[in-house]
Amino acid sequence: MNVYEMSEKEQYPLLSGIEVPNDLRRLPVEQLPQVCSELRRFIIHELADNPGHFASSLGVVELTVALHYVFNTPEDRIVWDVGHQAYGHKILTGRRHQFHTNRKLGGLKPFPSPEESEYDTCTCGHASNSISIALGMAVAAQKLGNDRRVVAVIGDGSMTGGLAFEGLNNVSSTPNDLLIILNDNDMSIDRSVGGMGEYLHKLHTSGTYNRLRDKAGRLMYRWHVLNDDRKGRVLRFNNAVKSLLTNQRNLFEGLNIRYFGPEDGHNVVRLVETLQRIKAMKGPKMLHLHTVKGKGFEPAERNATVWHAPGKFDPETGERLIPETDQPQPPRFQDVFGETLLEMARQDSRIVGVTPAMPTGCSMCIMQHEMPERVFDVGIAEGHAVTFSAGLAREGMRPFCNIYSSFAQRAYDNIIHDVAISRLNVVLCLDRAGIVGEDGPTHHGVFDLACLRPVPNLTIASPMDEHELRRLMYTAAQGEGGPFVIRYPRGRGLLTDWRCKLETVPIGKGRCLRKGDGPTVVLSLGPLGNVADEAIRESGIDAAHYDMRFLKPLDEGILHEVARRYHRIITIEDGVTEGGMGSAVLEWMSDNGFEPEIIRLGLPDRFVEHGTPAELYKIVGLDKERIIKELKGH
Amino acid sequence: MNVYEMSEKEQYPLLSGIEVPNDLRRLPVEQLPQVCSELRRFIIHELADNPGHFASSLGVVELTVALHYVFNTPEDRIVWDVGHQAYGHKILTGRRHQFHTNRKLGGLKPFPSPEESEYDTCTCGHASNSISIALGMAVAAQKLGNDRRVVAVIGDGSMTGGLAFEGLNNVSSTPNDLLIILNDNDMSIDRSVGGMGEYLHKLHTSGTYNRLRDKAGRLMYRWHVLNDDRKGRVLRFNNAVKSLLTNQRNLFEGLNIRYFGPEDGHNVVRLVETLQRIKAMKGPKMLHLHTVKGKGFEPAERNATVWHAPGKFDPETGERLIPETDQPQPPRFQDVFGETLLEMARQDSRIVGVTPAMPTGCSMCIMQHEMPERVFDVGIAEGHAVTFSAGLAREGMRPFCNIYSSFAQRAYDNIIHDVAISRLNVVLCLDRAGIVGEDGPTHHGVFDLACLRPVPNLTIASPMDEHELRRLMYTAAQGEGGPFVIRYPRGRGLLTDWRCKLETVPIGKGRCLRKGDGPTVVLSLGPLGNVADEAIRESGIDAAHYDMRFLKPLDEGILHEVARRYHRIITIEDGVTEGGMGSAVLEWMSDNGFEPEIIRLGLPDRFVEHGTPAELYKIVGLDKERIIKELKGH
Repeated sequence: MNVYEMSEKEQYPLLSGIEVPNDLRRLPVEQLPQVCSELRRFIIHELADNPGHFASSLGVVELTVALHYVFNTPEDRIVWDVGHQAYGHKILTGRRHQFHTNRKLGGLKPFPSPEESEYDTCTCGHASNSISIALGMAVAAQKLGNDRRVVAVIGDGSMTGGLAFEGLNNVSSTPNDLLIILNDNDMSIDRSVGGMGEYLHKLHTSGTYNRLRDKAGRLMYRWHVLNDDRKGRVLRFNNAVKSLLTNQRNLFEGLNIRYFGPEDGHNVVRLVETLQRIKAMKGPKMLHLHTVKGKGFEPAERNATVWHAPGKFDPETGERLIPETDQPQPPRFQDVFGETLLEMARQDSRIVGVTPAMPTGCSMCIMQHEMPERVFDVGIAEGHAVTFSAGLAREGMRPFCNIYSSFAQRAYDNIIHDVAISRLNVVLCLDRAGIVGEDGPTHHGVFDLACLRPVPNLTIASPMDEHELRRLMYTAAQGEGGPFVIRYPRGRGLLTDWRCKLETVPIGKGRCLRKGDGPTVVLSLGPLGNVADEAIRESGIDAAHYDMRFLKPLDEGILHEVARRYHRIITIEDGVTEGGMGSAVLEWMSDNGFEPEIIRLGLPDRFVEHGTPAELYKIVGLDKERIIKELKGH
Repeated sequence: MNVYEMSEKEQYPLLSGIEVPNDLRRLPVEQLPQVCSELRRFIIHELADNPGHFASSLGVVELTVALHYVFNTPEDRIVWDVGHQAYGHKILTGRRHQFHTNRKLGGLKPFPSPEESEYDTCTCGHASNSISIALGMAVAAQKLGNDRRVVAVIGDGSMTGGLAFEGLNNVSSTPNDLLIILNDNDMSIDRSVGGMGEYLHKLHTSGTYNRLRDKAGRLMYRWHVLNDDRKGRVLRFNNAVKSLLTNQRNLFEGLNIRYFGPEDGHNVVRLVETLQRIKAMKGPKMLHLHTVKGKGFEPAERNATVWHAPGKFDPETGERLIPETDQPQPPRFQDVFGETLLEMARQDSRIVGVTPAMPTGCSMCIMQHEMPERVFDVGIAEGHAVTFSAGLAREGMRPFCNIYSSFAQRAYDNIIHDVAISRLNVVLCLDRAGIVGEDGPTHHGVFDLACLRPVPNLTIASPMDEHELRRLMYTAAQGEGGPFVIRYPRGRGLLTDWRCKLETVPIGKGRCLRKGDGPTVVLSLGPLGNVADEAIRESGIDAAHYDMRFLKPLDEGILHEVARRYHRIITIEDGVTEGGMGSAVLEWMSDNGFEPEIIRLGLPDRFVEHGTPAELYKIVGLDKERIIKELKGH
């Protein structure tokens, strides 16, 4: 019998009986390895068809099962740091049957969300927030007098974020019973070499560790470094000894947090034992697990970066199913950025690249490959990325700091305080601007224009196509006028022949794309200008069209001309309408005594859910049809 | 001879000969203690008359002298974290004669600024940025092939900021020769008890430490925990041993940063020796100093909090000269916040307070005093403050999170991602909104309205007076409508009889303060409404006046009425005009087909320098005279 003819019950004998964690908790512990195996298989088969984040969730299958087995969810709280890893959690908490709708318009949300399930505790799209949120929940549990347990699960990548450190530092100094699970699945925190984990485990089980600790401890008492009154010191001392023995680079040893591990995160039975043992302990605790991203699917174990979000694939062979086309495809804006940066860096030794943990995502890896010493991947640390760039620029380097637009919200003060006030020549490239699609409201890059426009000394631009991206990057690299922001979207542009000559554009000057004899003019910023262009052609309306190119400084020449010649202005941008480009045009017209009718098209004052960009732009009214409607008048 | 009759040369025999650090470097090291003594005396006498930040600068007198003595400034770079401590630095670097203009309009800037002096390396108003900036400068020095040294000086308070951690983490993993000086001057990082520092010093000098380290090291080698190939591990191991011996809570031991200290930061001769010894060492280094805030001025040593910025005082007796008045003074908005929070917390057990290291500054100390277990001072960690509040609110608590407006720029993403998307009932009180005065451009709270307005789900309000602050706080405490932002200025209100009954106000509703029969209406937000009120009275113009009270949601009832009845609208707010309240009014009028003349008064698109608030409001055109002028028409 072929697997596709089997019933769910036959394919997943245990998993099919688990609708909610209570069902899981009725199983004997010996059956958990089989639950894990079925859950892993379920994830692989679902993701093969319905693409999503893959390797992270495979890495925490055992942890997910163990947590829901040991803790009384949803009364106890699990706080996932970055929801990429929470697919197993969704499947075990009442969403197995809807899991095929994951990340689709109207379907399950891409990340955990309290709106979707009582088992989800917080918004978790941006890394490093779990400890702070969980600490708030743990403190609230104490204040409210209930004995709820709170567990935060954080990856080692997220631990590089300053917010995680701020959280840890406060966990260490506020009374609470929080359990933090450090899911250590790559090299961001030094890995113990081969045998060391086993060595430690032997030490633990054999009691050697305890004997060593006691012996060294007595020595410390004799030296009067330790005494019984100082519990925190004893904890720190024990942590430090463990750190030395395991040779882990261990920041937590300096904190008053009881530290357990490192343990193998793929041994579900031992995990359950460990969690049961430490669950009721008072005070903050950290359990350090080693896991493998992509665990149980060999191609993913080999290359976790590719399999972070692999698209469709064959679940049996591991072959990735990349759609073929006859036509040459236009490149992604990301690759144009990456290739152009390298091209310029070859000519200009001042140029360096800075990325907070996204060298592949933003394609800075292209430059990194050829000149690794000139690319700085600073880890998940957006604030540092910008302030570090400020230091580089201060001494005459020309840093290109690339951050996803929504993540750059974390560097807002760094942009103002460390870059803009000092008018430093930092080039800030905001990738993933506008609607990003399936990752949903936490990832849409829609606030950047409105929040950066009021900041003095910034130049802010958005290219309409790949040629413009290259020209803007080149202009920014030459400029001496202070910080230069270039924001552009995720995905493909329009031009297959993208490698134009590198030329500067005049700062603060837009482009007239089409003159029109009618009363209407379209002012667009960024790639939506292409949609506007199509709309004008299709509508048959004789409207003029300008690509503003710069939000700041605004092209006053264009605005004067437009104010003189047209009665109706339609502004189009892929950012929030409050305070955005349309608002800037409105302000200018008002300040200069003009009173044209202005229709501002942009994103609405609500968080936009997930779906494909095309679906979402239609829903929010930023598609061709809407523009045609506005061109034709009300 | 009275001290006031002495010449500068007589009063300050050495200091008066130091115009720039080169002059200092010509002195023999034995004279440095006297330089320190004179510099300290100079600071005390200057600050007695011309108030400023006091205790921090006294604490780093010896360090400042030692740094400029050992390093070849300005070619070598000193990066101060938070400019409070840099008065000694200013005085030694060519600004002694202008020091009496410090913090005054047109005078020396409140913090170091590269615009002011080649000895100043960066903007340093917000804490925790020094390591990231200095790392950028150190990396640039390497890339540019010069052998410039870079030194970052950071206080232990600033070390709690996530940005500092992100910086440290990257210092640890990027090739560089940076020296970080940890100026440990209070209890933010556990203090070694009394004799421990001395004990350590003895260990160092006697060689005991080295023998202990070697002995323990050999043990570790025997256990195969250490080996020669792994330099990083040896460093970490040595750091860990030091940490255990000194009983310091030491986060740096986990990082590949060579760690020295702790040392007495007030022994200038030893400091010079130490700096000379480690100056040329390759790789990142940290020197940990213990200093006393307010050192050398007894009242300040006793109470560093009061003497952080004490105002005028008698330099001989230490008596603070607080101006007396016969009239009862209206309270500061801060005290109204603090008293009202306590008053409400007594009635409502859900209410807790969260502050990032500003319990005194924002007067949350009033509540902290009566109910310490319900106030959370999280250290300099604005992002955590907001996200922690999100966790508290998730479980039904009602956190009042108070952050200075300009510092809240650091929590922009936390507000969006952790609070607004989930529509949590966090009350965010933004203190120091508007022009703050002498602290200058880094501290003016002028971007909050414009950057928060586009964020969905937020309610944003600003009280015109103390009664309104109380009512808004009470309304926020009762509400279930999601995040509630209340922003208000530094300093005194207008009403001496401020303790009104606690009542709710309708959300999104403003107040009509004055009806007018003329064509002009004033719409104000926040305390500038009082200035507008005066201006209307003085102008003799029959203008109407509304206190909008809420920026979001806007009161559409008022806007409809205004649009119907008046031709000229003057909007007034103490935030940037781009995207602010005036812009919101403009957007609404445009969207609803009204075309009144709108004059938007607010802060200009440039960074506003330091001076008194009155001086600065006049300069930027937000004073009574300007409003009268606008009322009377162009």
